[in-house]
Amino acid sequence: MGDHWTMGTRRGTNLPRMGDFNQSVILEAIRQSGEGLSRIELAAATGLSAQTVTNITRRLLEDGFIREAGRTINGPGKPRVTLRLNADSRFAVGVHLDPALMTFVLLDLSGEVVRRLSVRTPAKDPRRIVEAMAATIDALIEESGVDRTRIAGVGVAAPGPLDAEKGTVIDPPKLLGWHRVPLRAVLAEATGLPVVLEKDTTSAAVGELWTRRGSAGDSFVFVYLGTGIGAAVARDGEAIPGSTRNMGEVGHIMVDPDGPPCSCGSRGCVEVVCTPQAIVEHAERVGVFQDDREVSDVAAVDERFSQLCERASHGEAPALAVLRQAAVHTSVLTAVLTNMLDVDRVVFGGPFWSRLSDVYLREIPALLERASATRAVRPLPVDGTVVGDDVGAVGAACVVLDSVLSPRASDLLLDR
Amino acid sequence: MGDHWTMGTRRGTNLPRMGDFNQSVILEAIRQSGEGLSRIELAAATGLSAQTVTNITRRLLEDGFIREAGRTINGPGKPRVTLRLNADSRFAVGVHLDPALMTFVLLDLSGEVVRRLSVRTPAKDPRRIVEAMAATIDALIEESGVDRTRIAGVGVAAPGPLDAEKGTVIDPPKLLGWHRVPLRAVLAEATGLPVVLEKDTTSAAVGELWTRRGSAGDSFVFVYLGTGIGAAVARDGEAIPGSTRNMGEVGHIMVDPDGPPCSCGSRGCVEVVCTPQAIVEHAERVGVFQDDREVSDVAAVDERFSQLCERASHGEAPALAVLRQAAVHTSVLTAVLTNMLDVDRVVFGGPFWSRLSDVYLREIPALLERASATRAVRPLPVDGTVVGDDVGAVGAACVVLDSVLSPRASDLLLDR
Repeated sequence: MGDHWTMGTRRGTNLPRMGDFNQSVILEAIRQSGEGLSRIELAAATGLSAQTVTNITRRLLEDGFIREAGRTINGPGKPRVTLRLNADSRFAVGVHLDPALMTFVLLDLSGEVVRRLSVRTPAKDPRRIVEAMAATIDALIEESGVDRTRIAGVGVAAPGPLDAEKGTVIDPPKLLGWHRVPLRAVLAEATGLPVVLEKDTTSAAVGELWTRRGSAGDSFVFVYLGTGIGAAVARDGEAIPGSTRNMGEVGHIMVDPDGPPCSCGSRGCVEVVCTPQAIVEHAERVGVFQDDREVSDVAAVDERFSQLCERASHGEAPALAVLRQAAVHTSVLTAVLTNMLDVDRVVFGGPFWSRLSDVYLREIPALLERASATRAVRPLPVDGTVVGDDVGAVGAACVVLDSVLSPRASDLLLDR
Repeated sequence: MGDHWTMGTRRGTNLPRMGDFNQSVILEAIRQSGEGLSRIELAAATGLSAQTVTNITRRLLEDGFIREAGRTINGPGKPRVTLRLNADSRFAVGVHLDPALMTFVLLDLSGEVVRRLSVRTPAKDPRRIVEAMAATIDALIEESGVDRTRIAGVGVAAPGPLDAEKGTVIDPPKLLGWHRVPLRAVLAEATGLPVVLEKDTTSAAVGELWTRRGSAGDSFVFVYLGTGIGAAVARDGEAIPGSTRNMGEVGHIMVDPDGPPCSCGSRGCVEVVCTPQAIVEHAERVGVFQDDREVSDVAAVDERFSQLCERASHGEAPALAVLRQAAVHTSVLTAVLTNMLDVDRVVFGGPFWSRLSDVYLREIPALLERASATRAVRPLPVDGTVVGDDVGAVGAACVVLDSVLSPRASDLLLDR
């Protein structure tokens, strides 16, 4: 019986674990309900006994997480007391660090955005970026009037790869000048708040799960359209972070055998075909823009990308053709992911999504259906995120709220 | 509060669930230990209290799953009684339906193969295949001398896609003549045993987990090299079946932009570059074989593939070059999977693995390392399966044993 065996043994569970788990199940059910639930409805929804529900809700009332919000008379018998979330009992800050734009949100415990700010990302100097980040977080909290003691923490959504153990961002391809920046430690120091670091793509999936109430049994792949393209996976209502929190690096999946060469040595990778910069370059090559100036810095790409989408929406054929081509290539990526992952649906989102959604939602569903290995078994719905362009920042705040609220079956297992 | 919300709510847990879960945790710990464990060691390994361990092991002894196997004196105090699995208290049959070969194994509760048989897959007639399968299962059990009442069930590993709800195999690309064959129902009828149907790739990952004792915290991608190429994923010690049990369809991932055209309309897909048939065709094109006969039926491909690998192992340069090229392309697939999935390691296996292992284990690790998005964070070990070529059949039997033995945190949640 060596170390190897001991390390691998499953842990059991016990009563205190069960109590904590059931408490978060009830809190989550009340949050998801929006308008509140009675104790009897809670028992029905969670499968827990009336006695368990009564004990747990008493504790939640005492701790200020929930409150009694009116009574309903429903036929004979005692009136039912509606229990509702105390949304302003806890808050969380979410930051999305994108190479072009930093977005900041303050969420209450119900997941509502109570305040929002965005600032352009300072060019290329990590120190200045972190200073701007800390200052903007302070401003966000200040302006909201929320007592700082009610802030559960700061979630930062950053482009991968990350070193999750050290809390560093490692050479993100789109953030030049960054090299193992100890973002988590520096920001915790500067703000005095607990900081969690999560990949932008995983954060987006968490935000989607939080906002789309009641998707506990659901599985989806989230295709994230940012300065880079990434993916995230949710299963059984939980985002899968991967074993080093670097899930979803899809930039070098080949989607066009006739595509341009890629820095990886191959050709036609997502990175050089589907990203906003690649799409803008394609538009430049085919003469969509009058001048033949080529742009490459993130802000200029963003602007040209907007022009391109604008022209396509006005029916200009060359612009539309460029976006349709991008949709075809993105559908190849999406089919690779859905066939590999066997999920129930696809969600698109990220900072560039809203500008692409018209064309992509018109083109991709049918292409994906044709390429789906499970087309004989089930359809594969394709949607845009319900959260909007701030999904990364919202999701990062939800990662923090998750640690306060959400039940995970794995939390039942005893620690080593 | 609509249906949508109700459907999504998490279920709680309760005492009976907890008891069942902890029982399977203890049984699994005893199984994994091989030589047995004392009650004190069980408590340490699982985190459960001494009283809980005593209660559960009493029940397991009564049910005949475990037995007392000697005492150890370990310093002062009472001698410790070693509890060991009663391996012959339950058995399971595993069948691997490959287009070329059907493999049958009988496993005892410890996961040991106690008997094995294989027969060539009858050509193309589903009815004859199922008849042969049922007859061989009967022969396997008969010859083993195991009492039929101790057989927990039959697990069948089949090529996807599957319709898991109906228990059918849907038009598997390599099994011509099959169309929605209701394999599970027909086989259950013919054998009088419970039958579970699982994808060959997922079965292989389950077999790997069972055999490699003590990998509860581990995550890996299993790259399955059969007549077709598939993948499976294990996380936290459990194989992920996907939402329709069709996880891991990777045949149309593009790995060579200069590769031959594929039936899907693209080129250079795994299907036309990495499969044994594609490798044999490549060898035929470059003149590895004296005659220029082209083969396509599965048995003939298998034979030529063996010749090719044999020649490569004797250092014949053209043969070796063909296999090296296949290794390069397979490394592209593997990098797509590991970068997407963020797992701890890669396991290769399947019916063609043992013939490829020398070349692939020499070439792929370095290629994968170079392409890994997380190379700055951790290495990515590459191994062959510990189970051998029967991993699909062994895994299918383990799927059956899993339902008897293995703890899953998700089993703690209350049913609707």
